[in-house]
Amino acid sequence: MNQPTEPKADKSGVRRHNLSLVLRTVHDAGETTRAAVAARVGLTRPAISSLVEQLLDLGFLVESGKTFSGQAGRPGTVLKPADTGPAGLGVEINVDYVTVRVVDLTGTDRVHRTEHLDNRAADAAGVLARAAGIAAEALDEAAGLRLAPAGAALALPGLVSGGTVRQAPNLGWNEVPAEAHFGKALTALRPATAGLPVTSDNEANMAALAELWSGSLGAVRTFLHLTGEIGVGGAIVVHGELLRGAHGFAGEIGHLVVDAEGPRCRCGSRGCLEQYAGQAALLASAGAADVRDLAGRAEAGEPRALTALAEAGRMLGRALSGAVNLLDPEAVVLGGIYPQLLPWLTPALADELSARVVSGLWTPDAGRLRPASTATDASRGAAALVLHDVLADPLTYAPQ
Amino acid sequence: MNQPTEPKADKSGVRRHNLSLVLRTVHDAGETTRAAVAARVGLTRPAISSLVEQLLDLGFLVESGKTFSGQAGRPGTVLKPADTGPAGLGVEINVDYVTVRVVDLTGTDRVHRTEHLDNRAADAAGVLARAAGIAAEALDEAAGLRLAPAGAALALPGLVSGGTVRQAPNLGWNEVPAEAHFGKALTALRPATAGLPVTSDNEANMAALAELWSGSLGAVRTFLHLTGEIGVGGAIVVHGELLRGAHGFAGEIGHLVVDAEGPRCRCGSRGCLEQYAGQAALLASAGAADVRDLAGRAEAGEPRALTALAEAGRMLGRALSGAVNLLDPEAVVLGGIYPQLLPWLTPALADELSARVVSGLWTPDAGRLRPASTATDASRGAAALVLHDVLADPLTYAPQ
Repeated sequence: MNQPTEPKADKSGVRRHNLSLVLRTVHDAGETTRAAVAARVGLTRPAISSLVEQLLDLGFLVESGKTFSGQAGRPGTVLKPADTGPAGLGVEINVDYVTVRVVDLTGTDRVHRTEHLDNRAADAAGVLARAAGIAAEALDEAAGLRLAPAGAALALPGLVSGGTVRQAPNLGWNEVPAEAHFGKALTALRPATAGLPVTSDNEANMAALAELWSGSLGAVRTFLHLTGEIGVGGAIVVHGELLRGAHGFAGEIGHLVVDAEGPRCRCGSRGCLEQYAGQAALLASAGAADVRDLAGRAEAGEPRALTALAEAGRMLGRALSGAVNLLDPEAVVLGGIYPQLLPWLTPALADELSARVVSGLWTPDAGRLRPASTATDASRGAAALVLHDVLADPLTYAPQ
Repeated sequence: MNQPTEPKADKSGVRRHNLSLVLRTVHDAGETTRAAVAARVGLTRPAISSLVEQLLDLGFLVESGKTFSGQAGRPGTVLKPADTGPAGLGVEINVDYVTVRVVDLTGTDRVHRTEHLDNRAADAAGVLARAAGIAAEALDEAAGLRLAPAGAALALPGLVSGGTVRQAPNLGWNEVPAEAHFGKALTALRPATAGLPVTSDNEANMAALAELWSGSLGAVRTFLHLTGEIGVGGAIVVHGELLRGAHGFAGEIGHLVVDAEGPRCRCGSRGCLEQYAGQAALLASAGAADVRDLAGRAEAGEPRALTALAEAGRMLGRALSGAVNLLDPEAVVLGGIYPQLLPWLTPALADELSARVVSGLWTPDAGRLRPASTATDASRGAAALVLHDVLADPLTYAPQ
């Protein structure tokens, strides 16, 4: 490789890439050895050792004293991702709560705070300032655990692009520069966070990523993800990538029309899915105080609750049959309030899919309807998004 | 590059790739010079000359006597794609017609035959044999023009995967091995076509590709494409690629439900879009004999025709608002019978989109609804698919 003209940037680019490769390999394995990493990524043992040393020095990896004898080669010390150092700060702002999580490089939730608030009652800047306040408290707690945020990601219930909430009908937000408001408020409270990268996306997109990266879907890489909240969030994952559309606004399953002359929706249309299967509509129609109450009434066989759930299931099935005919996913994942209500939603939902999906692949027993795993939600997806960036280029996030 | 261990396959792979690059560059330009190709692809003039000579020898390019002086460098002879040699055979089989086209490397239609048939009256093998018969006649005519098919592509109105029509409700086909039937029938009629590559896809996918590759959409790379026929075909293009879904069945816009309790559809569901905006439904509701008759009645202001068109437009808008909310395209392209009916479909269609699309990007004057260009249809898309393969790897299609 005696090529003096080769630009230095290339070599350092290759090393950056290889640092990421090694870190991701250890991360995906949970614990492993240098020899196993070398076998996996196809680099030489000396190259792997040099990369591992740098990751240990920078605090991305730790080494435990115990050894572990593989089937080939001599025993090696065990490598694991560090449970201190760079962490993801995930913030979900929804209609009636704010959730903040700090997740470490091992993927473990280390700090978790949920505050129930009426976010429609305050102005957008106030809500974002309150979220920053909760995040600052969470970061104080994280600092005690020797965790420092590598970035923050905001999961928001609306159309988000360029750091701005273009529209969030259920919050009443329009053109709210959410990243800027949040970053400014957080820096005011915790000056050390000045310059912290802040990203934002639709909460359903973040929940779908959380589900994808959790591994709970197995080999499924093309799916629809619905999140039942006050609104019904939707996200589309095709071959392992979020489908964002031309302007970043794809996935609005909650505004598929299920009855053209139905009730007026906050989006301006009529008869949108969320007017039947959103949390507020469902509780009102069942006469239930909250989701737990609704599940209890259904369990007790209360006719009004059962009727409301069957109707919501039918409307979910009607909207989803359209989405399935358009997108041909392998599975539909139902999150938010839906997993605990599935026993009563599923019969009508599955019947509609079976009757209306052209491909014939959606028979009730095909196992294509799945509850979201309990391990995932939008704030965890947001934190995972930050960690994804760290794993993709650890040097950018190395301590100075 | 003194690396005797470098496998030969790599070098020949690079040359294959560069032949394709040069051929595509000339194809996209229509006519150009060696110097312009060199500037465009970033290879040296000698390398370009060697590649161009090979493409001239193999008959993919021709050189005209005239010269053309660019702004830089000396005048060069003009290079163009050949209008003889490898051609695409595109075959569209629809409910009431078969269309066959032979398109040359310049992208020009050279042979075109449409035969009106009732394809529901015959069995699938019979229909495919008849299509092969029309194709054989078209190839005889093409041979007189010194064109030889590089491959055949079948555009079919249904769910297609692995060479087989899984379901085509409007033809009454199930699990029909269309490529095999067609290839066998064609070889029986024209033994020289033995071994000709035959591919197949949904007709709406092929029409969408034809539209994309025609250049008529300008910078638009993410769009929905509807084809109004007996059924309503749909295709989704995201960032310039067809979205096929997990099993190849994506895009079934015609089976979005617009009225859950509406008329029974051939797919087994009720109230699908094609029950309102498909050709048969629209003509019946307007009391018109054919599409030209319908347009004439609308032009004359006949109330029944106007009402039927407004209703179809409303239902198109209702279904499309759902598809737009899910997919966030830049445009919706309406093909098949729709371009000539747009003056009467558009008002209700645009109103529905404006009222129901959450992003607010679909106001009636946003120019996002477009008629398919008259230059494109499914059989041309099918032929273009074959030519796309030729341009991607000309050596595979070189004469022996």
